[in-house]
Amino acid sequence: MKLYGYWRSSAAYRVRIALNLKGLDAEQLSVHLVKNGGEQHSDDYVALNPQHLVPSLVLDDGTVLTQSLAIMEYFEDAGLGLPLLPESATDRATVRAMCLAIACEIHPLNNLRVLQYLSGDMGLSDEVKNTWYHHWIHEGFTAFEKLLARHSGEYCFGDSPTLADACLIPQVYNARRFNVPLDNYPNILRIEAHCNATQAFIDALPENQPDAQ
Amino acid sequence: MKLYGYWRSSAAYRVRIALNLKGLDAEQLSVHLVKNGGEQHSDDYVALNPQHLVPSLVLDDGTVLTQSLAIMEYFEDAGLGLPLLPESATDRATVRAMCLAIACEIHPLNNLRVLQYLSGDMGLSDEVKNTWYHHWIHEGFTAFEKLLARHSGEYCFGDSPTLADACLIPQVYNARRFNVPLDNYPNILRIEAHCNATQAFIDALPENQPDAQ
Repeated sequence: MKLYGYWRSSAAYRVRIALNLKGLDAEQLSVHLVKNGGEQHSDDYVALNPQHLVPSLVLDDGTVLTQSLAIMEYFEDAGLGLPLLPESATDRATVRAMCLAIACEIHPLNNLRVLQYLSGDMGLSDEVKNTWYHHWIHEGFTAFEKLLARHSGEYCFGDSPTLADACLIPQVYNARRFNVPLDNYPNILRIEAHCNATQAFIDALPENQPDAQ
Repeated sequence: MKLYGYWRSSAAYRVRIALNLKGLDAEQLSVHLVKNGGEQHSDDYVALNPQHLVPSLVLDDGTVLTQSLAIMEYFEDAGLGLPLLPESATDRATVRAMCLAIACEIHPLNNLRVLQYLSGDMGLSDEVKNTWYHHWIHEGFTAFEKLLARHSGEYCFGDSPTLADACLIPQVYNARRFNVPLDNYPNILRIEAHCNATQAFIDALPENQPDAQ
């Protein structure tokens, strides 16, 4: 498998965590999201992924999969490696809701293209952009902290890693980059510390990728 | 089952479509997203759904499920009604990627709380807010149109309805509310016309809900 990603992309980081937790290998190909106006907009890449987004996963038969959550669900459906969703339908729904609480409610508001639009097309100051960023992290993490109070153990859902951890950890990493104070989120911090002490999460860290700068 | 929703909520609308396509019944309970500062912020509702968002689905045993995509995946996992995901793992990944192309890339940027934040906290004009809204619809629909060129038949993926249609149709409805010109999206318009001629989609329309105003 080939994984098109970028060291700092939260969505690619999610997939790296899932691959590592499952013990799966994928060749990493870097799509530089900033250089030359963003390589995700190149003709070659857009032919692969018309959304101009990373990650994309190319299977050995050439099938292209996009969207980090869909890629991770593919690993589950194909029975590859350790399961990262629980067994019962209701528990699976809970883990998926946690994933979506990050992937639909926080990340889309704070990713690169949105921040570029706020400062570029809308001409807003760095200060306003920063306030915007912090606002959506706090909204999302306040709710996520309550979900963790109900469902977490050592990980987001009980004592085994799930797709929810693969979504949370990159979002926390991203929040730290933007200096968001996280003291009000003890469960998030506890799970972050636990995950980032394990090899699968360490190996997936942005700074440990071949294209890290 | 009890479905907490709101007639104009795109996310609740998705779940209504899925329920109707599957021939499942749920008692609808209205959470008025605007009245009294938004009933989704009431103590009772937040105890149910700490994200302050609709929909929430309460199962007969009292289990609460949240996030529209997680709720719809629950119907699949629990084997309720007609399947709305294809059989093969790669096809399922494609349909899920289409769902996420709406649910992660368009809707989160244009939903009520974001529009309220743009005009409220950020003090931006209706014109700027409108430009923002249209921008993300066009970004998202341009990419989605290409996905449809690859995968669609009568529906988003082939000739049977899937979760992708349950995501697309509410987003198109929403775009029409904001007067976004849709002429450049012939595949989206074709699928919209096809879906909205079927009873499951008609019955799910916002204006056909008990709490419609």
